[in-house]
Amino acid sequence: MEHDIDLSGYSIRTDLAVEAHELARQHNESDIPGVWLQADDSEPGIMVTRLHVQTEEAGKKLGKLPGRYLTIEVPKLRNNDTSVEEQVIRRFAVEFGGFLKELGITEEHKALVVGLGNWNVTPDALGPMVVENLLVTRHLYQIAPETVGDGYRPVSALSPGVLGITGIETSEIVFGVVEKSKPDFVICVDALASRALHRVNTTIQISDTGIHPGSGVGNKRKAIDQETLGIPVIAIGVPTVVFASTIVNDAITYLLGHFGQSMAESNRAFNRLSMSTLPERKEPYTEEDLPDMESRKTFMGLVGSLPEEEKRQLIHEVLRPLGQDLIVTPKEVDDFIEGVSNVVATGLNRSLHRAVDEENSAAYTH
Amino acid sequence: MEHDIDLSGYSIRTDLAVEAHELARQHNESDIPGVWLQADDSEPGIMVTRLHVQTEEAGKKLGKLPGRYLTIEVPKLRNNDTSVEEQVIRRFAVEFGGFLKELGITEEHKALVVGLGNWNVTPDALGPMVVENLLVTRHLYQIAPETVGDGYRPVSALSPGVLGITGIETSEIVFGVVEKSKPDFVICVDALASRALHRVNTTIQISDTGIHPGSGVGNKRKAIDQETLGIPVIAIGVPTVVFASTIVNDAITYLLGHFGQSMAESNRAFNRLSMSTLPERKEPYTEEDLPDMESRKTFMGLVGSLPEEEKRQLIHEVLRPLGQDLIVTPKEVDDFIEGVSNVVATGLNRSLHRAVDEENSAAYTH
Amino acid sequence: MEHDIDLSGYSIRTDLAVEAHELARQHNESDIPGVWLQADDSEPGIMVTRLHVQTEEAGKKLGKLPGRYLTIEVPKLRNNDTSVEEQVIRRFAVEFGGFLKELGITEEHKALVVGLGNWNVTPDALGPMVVENLLVTRHLYQIAPETVGDGYRPVSALSPGVLGITGIETSEIVFGVVEKSKPDFVICVDALASRALHRVNTTIQISDTGIHPGSGVGNKRKAIDQETLGIPVIAIGVPTVVFASTIVNDAITYLLGHFGQSMAESNRAFNRLSMSTLPERKEPYTEEDLPDMESRKTFMGLVGSLPEEEKRQLIHEVLRPLGQDLIVTPKEVDDFIEGVSNVVATGLNRSLHRAVDEENSAAYTH
Amino acid sequence: MEHDIDLSGYSIRTDLAVEAHELARQHNESDIPGVWLQADDSEPGIMVTRLHVQTEEAGKKLGKLPGRYLTIEVPKLRNNDTSVEEQVIRRFAVEFGGFLKELGITEEHKALVVGLGNWNVTPDALGPMVVENLLVTRHLYQIAPETVGDGYRPVSALSPGVLGITGIETSEIVFGVVEKSKPDFVICVDALASRALHRVNTTIQISDTGIHPGSGVGNKRKAIDQETLGIPVIAIGVPTVVFASTIVNDAITYLLGHFGQSMAESNRAFNRLSMSTLPERKEPYTEEDLPDMESRKTFMGLVGSLPEEEKRQLIHEVLRPLGQDLIVTPKEVDDFIEGVSNVVATGLNRSLHRAVDEENSAAYTH
Repeated sequence: MEHDIDLSGYSIRTDLAVEAHELARQHNESDIPGVWLQADDSEPGIMVTRLHVQTEEAGKKLGKLPGRYLTIEVPKLRNNDTSVEEQVIRRFAVEFGGFLKELGITEEHKALVVGLGNWNVTPDALGPMVVENLLVTRHLYQIAPETVGDGYRPVSALSPGVLGITGIETSEIVFGVVEKSKPDFVICVDALASRALHRVNTTIQISDTGIHPGSGVGNKRKAIDQETLGIPVIAIGVPTVVFASTIVNDAITYLLGHFGQSMAESNRAFNRLSMSTLPERKEPYTEEDLPDMESRKTFMGLVGSLPEEEKRQLIHEVLRPLGQDLIVTPKEVDDFIEGVSNVVATGLNRSLHRAVDEENSAAYTH
Repeated sequence: MEHDIDLSGYSIRTDLAVEAHELARQHNESDIPGVWLQADDSEPGIMVTRLHVQTEEAGKKLGKLPGRYLTIEVPKLRNNDTSVEEQVIRRFAVEFGGFLKELGITEEHKALVVGLGNWNVTPDALGPMVVENLLVTRHLYQIAPETVGDGYRPVSALSPGVLGITGIETSEIVFGVVEKSKPDFVICVDALASRALHRVNTTIQISDTGIHPGSGVGNKRKAIDQETLGIPVIAIGVPTVVFASTIVNDAITYLLGHFGQSMAESNRAFNRLSMSTLPERKEPYTEEDLPDMESRKTFMGLVGSLPEEEKRQLIHEVLRPLGQDLIVTPKEVDDFIEGVSNVVATGLNRSLHRAVDEENSAAYTH
Repeated sequence: MEHDIDLSGYSIRTDLAVEAHELARQHNESDIPGVWLQADDSEPGIMVTRLHVQTEEAGKKLGKLPGRYLTIEVPKLRNNDTSVEEQVIRRFAVEFGGFLKELGITEEHKALVVGLGNWNVTPDALGPMVVENLLVTRHLYQIAPETVGDGYRPVSALSPGVLGITGIETSEIVFGVVEKSKPDFVICVDALASRALHRVNTTIQISDTGIHPGSGVGNKRKAIDQETLGIPVIAIGVPTVVFASTIVNDAITYLLGHFGQSMAESNRAFNRLSMSTLPERKEPYTEEDLPDMESRKTFMGLVGSLPEEEKRQLIHEVLRPLGQDLIVTPKEVDDFIEGVSNVVATGLNRSLHRAVDEENSAAYTH
Repeated sequence: MEHDIDLSGYSIRTDLAVEAHELARQHNESDIPGVWLQADDSEPGIMVTRLHVQTEEAGKKLGKLPGRYLTIEVPKLRNNDTSVEEQVIRRFAVEFGGFLKELGITEEHKALVVGLGNWNVTPDALGPMVVENLLVTRHLYQIAPETVGDGYRPVSALSPGVLGITGIETSEIVFGVVEKSKPDFVICVDALASRALHRVNTTIQISDTGIHPGSGVGNKRKAIDQETLGIPVIAIGVPTVVFASTIVNDAITYLLGHFGQSMAESNRAFNRLSMSTLPERKEPYTEEDLPDMESRKTFMGLVGSLPEEEKRQLIHEVLRPLGQDLIVTPKEVDDFIEGVSNVVATGLNRSLHRAVDEENSAAYTH
């Protein structure tokens, strides 16, 4: 979770493709060409969305790289209910297994799981916590291959730490370790930022686009993806934080929507009122006959559809006392991260090793 | 931090007396009788506010019990800068020492420090973390009084845990321990909720009103105060969380203020427009001549001064997807709590023991 | 775990009744009157020993208070194997349930579980860690009794902390909390010291004698037992440390035993040698004819059966560079404590609440 | 701390060169050629030993690689006394600075600090804990070199984790990261095993020989040293554990020494006794005249100087119930590791950055 993009513009900020798509739809009011989307709510309590960004152009519209995005949303995941967790583990394992298959990754391919993020910052510790609970086997294949039963694959794991702790770009560490340990594919686990508080700790996103911290000049070398590593890179992310600015943005958007509706009615009332004050004549007045339309438009525009620039300014003003880039997380973050990292780790253990199933998977996590 | 009050009404929620006073002032637009307030910004970077709620009536207006409230605000406390921390420790020790003196507590009086809150929930762990860093001496006076040098007093400390972990009301535990260990006064340390994100982890409140979780029927027995314990109870609190609803409320309030201003202008424009449509006559029309004032008022009311009920409804709608009582904390909560608990513990060690000073106080904390 | 007894004499130190009994047997070479003992190894891998100290006199011989002691020994518990853990949980729940029944404690009786020890010292953190994983229900009976299903009982829990952190005797805190919260019986969980490294983290002791820290003058008030509390007090203990001196003692004892055997042979050789040097005569010499028996005895005594005082002196010399009262724990202490505290907490949850069983008990622990 | 050497032989096991030298001296009874040693106790409470293993042959005798070993011993370091810690930090910084200079490392050279060991096993967490408290600057030189003041150097840091967590040899990770991040020298921090409990957490060893886990076939590639990395590798180690077998070994050795002395006297008495039984004659008997010397030697040998093989067998027997390779650590391990990792981290910060001194170094550690 390294949010080094420019926040000064309060561009709406999300790491989730489904949210980016929702936002793009709001502004385009029609389907976006080059985006394929399938929602599956066949299992009660779980919504799985498959979203393929098929063209560069579609990617630009969404602010997301072309590729496959699979999202599992489970509102009840936040309740710390072990039976819900077991349900999500099961589904995650199935979906992740299918995702690997679509990428041509077989049971023999060797995996390296990279736990991104900072273990000292609870909402950023998802990656390292998942790594702690993985069933790691690569060394067994090297030291005592005869002891490894059927149904396992070589899996290694690494929590490289963050730039402030290591002084080294995460990508440099991963490049070095991949060169030496030679996995066939990489799985990166990271905490994300959502734009909606209700998605925090309830949503898991799987994508084949890798990790792309920041977007500025010179950031190319920071990317951890198929292009830079030469092997498939699958990213697993869970939103654990939101920008305070998105809460404010939501509130303002909602309020403007609310006023917009009221304004439509009020406008008609205003026009009726205006017309009633005009000198009587035979044909009824229409709105066309009303004078000074410009001033009325200005007035309406003021409330009904605040210009983007002015909206940013408003958010800026509201957030000024907070520090502009404040990121918040639910108070119960410790429990949430523990629960969701257990879900991801156990799900990965089952997906990556055929021999790990519902019966025995608890033995591999803490 | 037990927020069991009714949130359904989105009444503005704060544990800080200075915030309650600000809010009350906003609604009253004049000084509130029975409230004495003194702000001291003589030390750069630190604002100390002394607020006395002198009457029951004033207390009701503020939603705070009568008593003394001392607030230390240091915006830079969030920067994890050790020199700022040392400055705040110094000031806290001085102010807390003065507070004790005003209550008639002398160097011989025995203290029990109670660390309220849940050590498993980082933003709620302030109390237990302060207790871990206290210089505890009571047992030395009991076991080997000759080993205790001059300049110390008997200090004991307890982290009773929260109801969900113990099954016992915190107050019951404290009553039992006070009866057996017989301190002369009690200091309760607790994490608070602020209504403003910018006060989170930048503000320390000291009060002589004790601890009063909730406010419903039957909660009398939960209070930890001079009335229930028979000895002075001083509460030290630091806001570590805000309700998401207060962020939304702030945004909406700000937006309404913004629209309110625009509306004043728009209203005049509207009236000029309306007047211009009236049949010409010799004396100029005034606003009094305009018809249908009622409809205009409705229209204005809609935007300029949203009725409280409608405002609540709006906040409710915005927050519906979040769960209504979501409480958030800055992402960097781990660092903040560590820093501020060190400030409070070190400050208390210096205030409570004359022999502990700037030179040696680090030796007593971790 | 407060080992404040006098160690200067290197009296053999153990918190386990079975060890005390073993030692007493070694010195008495016959059954000790007033001790009833039954060993049950019917379940593979688990040894359950029931030991009743039936008289004051027997108690003095063992250095243990009269009462019932039940010990569960599982050498494989140290392997961090979840299937072994589940087996021990099952057995512990059965044995503890039986223990309660023998004391006349029924399903309706209200329990308070006290987690003794210091959460900052890993091998001493057993009690607090058990408390963290208990299913606590007392508050539900108070706040919303209608929500508590059948098959539960009111359970509360407390980790009072240690004297160095609180400045208050643990017993004072427990007395205060028992008076206010009025349980029908108390369960104290504590880490113990064993005299044998192989019992560390492999043994669980249950007794009805309560907790008796230290043994010096004035320690009466520190006891937490039926006499001081007026209700049954059951102690659950797991040895997590040994005194380094017991390892040295073991080594020396073993060596002396080894030499003792050799000495018997050597002694005979020595005598044969001595006799062969005597002037020839008709009747064969016997050992009776040998001169200077005293010097030979002295010589034998030197090695074969070192006087207790000299043995202490030896241990003292060996340990001098270590600090005399060094207490050690296996390097893997973090894992061990986590595993065994999960066993005790889950076992307690099943014993205390009929509604908690193998299926659902995982949901209550972390 | 990866102790994968063969313990079945109970060869005496130590990671400390000073201990290896002591042992070699015991067996050789004279100076070992090729070993240069200088002890410096000029500062009260601190013993600094410089030991150079100058030849391969000397290395074999000690079981240590040729190179420089600097040992700082501070018995009081275990007392958790902050003034002692500050004293050791100061001395460590001076000695480490000198050590760098001797290796030709200047203020401009870029450092990578590697924290070896397992953060989940407290006595093995020294390396990772030191890394957490380092002042890391390499990224600042890359991102914003103009912000880095004078008196700093580029420092990066990494905690690679252990084989069981990552599935990748530590050395492979370090090789990869060194290739990508290109430091000029590497500092490895690791927890060690001592053969003497009194050195645990009181001793810091600095050496220029790097890290050499194990010694078996195929372990070459695991070494992290100048030969494998091509740049200087400095190892910093603190003993945090001992093998239980060394405690037993110490006890037995002490006991044998004790008996040996007594035996000398007893032997003389025995001879006098034997001679007194011989038929009288003019010249006094001498010991030469005594018959059956062989049997007496056997008898003496039995006790006075136990053959190595038999000694091993004894240790084996004593330890059988413990598991043969049990490693122990003082009960207070959590505090010790926190204290000593603070000493090493703060000392490194001062050594590596000229601009960090006694005044400001606390600001960089937690």
